[in-house]
This record gives sequence, C-alpha cells and structure tokens, in this order.
Amino acid sequence: MKITKPTLLINETIARRNIQQFQEKAKRANILFRPHFKTHQSIEIGRWFRDYGIDKIAVSSVEMAQYFMQDQWNDITIAVPVNMNEVEVIDAMAGKISLQLIVDSVEALQFMENKMQNSCGIFLEIDTGYHRTGIESTNQSKIDDCIAILRKSEKLQFKGFLSHAGNTYSSSTKEEIRTYSQYNLKELQRLKAIYVAEFPEIITSYGDTPSLSISKHFEGCDEIRPGNFVLYDLMQYQLGVCSFDDIACVMACPVISKNMKRNEMVIYGGAIHFSKEYILDKYKEAFYGLVCKMNDDGTWQALNENHHLSRVSQEHGVIKASSDLLEQVNIGDIIGVVPVHSCLAVNLMGMYTSVEGKKISTIRFFH
Amino acid sequence: MKITKPTLLINETIARRNIQQFQEKAKRANILFRPHFKTHQSIEIGRWFRDYGIDKIAVSSVEMAQYFMQDQWNDITIAVPVNMNEVEVIDAMAGKISLQLIVDSVEALQFMENKMQNSCGIFLEIDTGYHRTGIESTNQSKIDDCIAILRKSEKLQFKGFLSHAGNTYSSSTKEEIRTYSQYNLKELQRLKAIYVAEFPEIITSYGDTPSLSISKHFEGCDEIRPGNFVLYDLMQYQLGVCSFDDIACVMACPVISKNMKRNEMVIYGGAIHFSKEYILDKYKEAFYGLVCKMNDDGTWQALNENHHLSRVSQEHGVIKASSDLLEQVNIGDIIGVVPVHSCLAVNLMGMYTSVEGKKISTIRFFH
Repeated sequence: MKITKPTLLINETIARRNIQQFQEKAKRANILFRPHFKTHQSIEIGRWFRDYGIDKIAVSSVEMAQYFMQDQWNDITIAVPVNMNEVEVIDAMAGKISLQLIVDSVEALQFMENKMQNSCGIFLEIDTGYHRTGIESTNQSKIDDCIAILRKSEKLQFKGFLSHAGNTYSSSTKEEIRTYSQYNLKELQRLKAIYVAEFPEIITSYGDTPSLSISKHFEGCDEIRPGNFVLYDLMQYQLGVCSFDDIACVMACPVISKNMKRNEMVIYGGAIHFSKEYILDKYKEAFYGLVCKMNDDGTWQALNENHHLSRVSQEHGVIKASSDLLEQVNIGDIIGVVPVHSCLAVNLMGMYTSVEGKKISTIRFFH
Repeated sequence: MKITKPTLLINETIARRNIQQFQEKAKRANILFRPHFKTHQSIEIGRWFRDYGIDKIAVSSVEMAQYFMQDQWNDITIAVPVNMNEVEVIDAMAGKISLQLIVDSVEALQFMENKMQNSCGIFLEIDTGYHRTGIESTNQSKIDDCIAILRKSEKLQFKGFLSHAGNTYSSSTKEEIRTYSQYNLKELQRLKAIYVAEFPEIITSYGDTPSLSISKHFEGCDEIRPGNFVLYDLMQYQLGVCSFDDIACVMACPVISKNMKRNEMVIYGGAIHFSKEYILDKYKEAFYGLVCKMNDDGTWQALNENHHLSRVSQEHGVIKASSDLLEQVNIGDIIGVVPVHSCLAVNLMGMYTSVEGKKISTIRFFH
C-alpha cells in the first residue's frame, strides 16, 4: 500500500476483537449491548458488529440515525437530548423503526407529545455529576413532571433512565472511574425502583467506555452503550482502560521537515486530521498524538521511547523527537501517529484505509 | 430560512468588504496580493475574490490546489513544505499552471530536482522565530546549499523567500504583533538583498492575518498571503486586529437543554462543528465560541454581555449564560455562536449557508 498523505489506518482484527470482547462481557452479565456508533461512523464497520449478533445501536444525531437506517439498523437510540427542530424527520423515522429518544426537559417532552404522529420510545436522561445534560438524579419533582406526561401519552413510550458518566474521563485513577460509575448506576437503579411497578418494561441504560472497559459486573445496569472501545485511542490508553495493542487506528503521515537543533520533525498531518483534542504528559504539557513505528504489513507498533505530536496547525504538526529517532527518519518517510481522540479523528478524516489497503467510508459520504 | 441543526452562516457583504479592503490596501502599497484560500476552502467564495481582480492564490495542500485548479485558478502557491510523496500529482499540475512550491530542506529540493519533469517555482521558507517549518533566517550555509541546487536547476525556478509569522498569534499587544512582523520582514529583505543581483526576479512573500490586518505599510514585502481575514473569527477579534462587525461567519445552533441552577444551556453544536480550538477569557478559562443574537434577516449581532461556549463534546456544547439570557432563550430556539477559529469550523462543516439562505459548498465535496 502506497501512502502519500495523511491516512487513517484501521486494523480490523483489533477492532473485531474489541467488539467481541465487549459482546461476550455483556452476554456473561446478561445485559443488553447497544454500542454507540458515533465513534466509527461507518456502515461497513457497523456490519462487523452485526457479525457478533448485535442489532441495537446508539447514535449521536438524527443524521447518523438516518445513515445507519439505510443499512437496515432498525433499533436505534439517538443518545443526545432531542432537538425539537428536527421533529419532522424524527417522526418519519419513528414510523419505520424502533426509535428511542432521550429527553431532559418537560418542554421538549411536551413538544414531542404534541407534534409526533408515530410512536417512539423515550428515555429520561439522568445527570449524576457530569453536569452536561440530564435531569439531576435528585430532582424528583422534575422527573415526576416528565413521567406525568409519559403516563398520559399514547405515543411516547417510557423506556427508562439513561445516563452518560462523562466524568470518568477526568478521573486520574481506575478507582475514581469506578466510584463515579457505581454512584451513577446506583442512582439509575434507585430511580428505576421507584417507577418499575407502574412501568414494568423500563430499563436503565448506561454509557461511557472508560468505566465499562474496566468493569466485569454491571450492578444496576440493564443496557450498556459504550462507543469508543471499538477503536480506543490515546485518551483511553492514558486513563489505563485499554492497552496500546487494543488501539485499532493510527494516522499514517508523511514527514515534511526536520530540525535537528530543536529536536523536531514536522509531519503533513494537523488539526484537520487529528483535531485539536489534547491530553497532558507528565510535565503537564499538551500533546495531540503519539508517534509509533509503521510495519511493512500496514500494522504499527509502539516505540521504545515516547515521542509526542506536540503542536498542530491546520495541515501540519510538530513532533518532539529524540536525536535517535531523528537520525532514523528521513524527510519523505511515513510515520504513524496514534490520535488522542479517535472519534474526532474519524469525523475529520471521513474515510479509513484498512491495514490491507481497502477503503472504508463513513457518514461523511452520506448526503 | 428555517434552521434545524448546526448551520454555518456566512454574510457575503462582510466577506466581500474584507476582501476589498485588503485588495485596496495591497494596491496602495503596490504589492502582490495572494490570498490564502485555506480559510474559506470554497470555489464559490473564490469567485468573490476574482470580482476584485485577484488571480493568484495560496493553498495549504495539493488536494486544495487541484480543487481550485478546477475553477481556472492558474497561479497557485502550495504554502506548506512540499510533501515528496505527492510528487507525481504535483508534477502533473506544474505542467498545467504556474505552480509554486515551498521548500525548507536540501533533501526535498534535491528530490524534486530529480523527479520533476515540468518546471515550477520554488520559494525557500524562512523561519524568523515561529519555529514550525522553514530554514532559520540566520542559517546562511543551509540557504546557500539550497540555492546551489536552484542555481543549477533547469526545472526549479527560484522565486524568493517566504515566511509565515505565526508567532503573531501568541502576541498580547498590537505592538508585539508589529515587532514580530517587522523583524520577519527585515530578515526576508536582508536575504533577498544577498541574492537579488544573481536572481533579479526573486521576491519576498509574507503571510499571517494578524500583522497584515493592522499594517498600512509593508516595508520589505513584495507579496502578502493572508487567509483568515475573509471571515475573521474570535481569535482575531481577541487579538484586536478586527472588529466584531468584520466577522463574516457564525454557527447557528439549536438549544437542546437548559439548567437554570447552573446557569447553563446546551446547544446542538460541538467539537465536530466548532473544533476544539479555544482561547482564554480574562479569568484564563478556555472557551470555544461567543454567543450572539440572531436577527430575523439571518444576520447576527453582539449581545450586551459576553456568554461563552465553555465546553464542547462531540455533538453538543455547554454555554455559561446569565439568568437574563436563560430567561429569554427557550429550548428549541436557534442561537448564534461565533467560532474561535473559522478555518477549522469551515473545514468541519464543509458547507456554508448564506444569510440569504443559499448553500455554498467547499472542498469537502471534491473527490
């Protein structure tokens, strides 16, 4: 395979192993596995999931739901508070597939109740500390107000309580990840217990790759919605929830400049390939990717030392490198850089190349 | 115009005014104006430039050069150190248009000399302190080594010295911007003086929107390559090089959640729309956009108070808002958010909507 410009490589073997491991874990725990497809964003990769019996998914936009519907996914949760402005498209989708929406306000719920013609499922989003969206788990009166609407509705079917423990991403230890996650699940379970007699079908739905990657048991949880685990990335690796060998994607980039005096090399590969998502190294310096070695067969491996993509411009990026690495790498060579945040890199690139050289397209090419 | 999801609006009147003002300034100073098209990335917006007599452009990738070539742009500088891996495509382009490449190493120059069949222009990129790419302006021996190759070459035509004073972006005062810029131009001028007797056609080419926006005179400069000025953005506004009314684009986003207790609202609009580029407010807190008011005619205006897009997830973002604003805005409303970095927002969105409701596509749809 000849690489001439920044190319997002995906290792199907690793991605499939990640899928299978999660699927088996969910099966052992006897819970629903509803992977979030916002990470890989690809119909073709979606089919890899199908090979392991998965038939329910979560997505992060109406457009993404439409894209995957095209490929016969017919049980989809749009896992962002519903955007009232898209009610017409949502309603049309709800007429065709099992669609679940999430809601965190009386206003949006009332609006959907008034406007929807077709029936759909509704999860109440619950906030247990991440403080982005969701009704605070202790705000019983607001939850009651929402359930009052659902109780009377003939179109909106109450599906249960859903949360995303995004605060696990700012954890510094696995213990902290577990603490956030356990509290989150306890709250979902507590809320379910209050309403389950009246709504016997309701479930708890829980997401986030960090806590789900390190959990074996899922007390309080009926459904899990991890997304990032299919590819993983540096952020997850730094959190300690995956190994380097679990990371299924890398950006292959040409070297276009070198500066021996500053111990730097510059790659064609910048903010429009990696995004500007960063993590901090041990000196609290931001970096955007980790250099690795490309093998002849299209796979990659860790280097002995850590070399960071330390600055990114629109199209190019600066790597701090040891003299040893700089001696080995020539201008024109292709090096690998593992992205900090694979979801954003995939969104920017819009196209994968498999290790075997096959192109795999994403929602980018869905209009 | 009905907006249902994050939509990048462009005000053509403002963009044209920005173009015209720069064009007139360059004309008064009697220097070449070669706008950098990496910001707007659009054939249609490129035609607005043509209306003001502009016929030379800079781009940031080979692909972008190919895209604009399609629309009869036939004098293009690819203003990133040449990627040797793309030599075949570059060579083919060089056979069709006036193509200028930039080079900062003997290796790349020698490679191009060996591989190119067609002739093309070569700028030596010079670094005067930004320390990304470029030969350090004081590294006379490396510059001489490069010129030795150019002297003998029949295909590579030495065009002059080119620089990007990217350090102006980290300036805290206009004075500092001017200092960086003046030093940069002085160095380019000094280098030109050394070689101009032997190469009478060489010029100095200088880029960066901040310094060029506040300059009236351009001593030492034969050609300017600003890019961002056509749209401007919050970063430029915070640097003090444009007014709020010079910003030609805004992201219109639906409100999907509100939290009165935390003084927050959440929009559909996140990292895949704005990018994760941030600037710091006066409390050194990062933010990703500035809320403004949408007018009924599709234009926008500043609010009395500053409200920041203070966190972005993949698809949604959290705005810190006053109680007043939260009272006025309902879930389902559309609000405007000016992006921190318009180049990255354009790249992510791939499509503009004009204030009048017309779709304007970009390179995203060029395959």
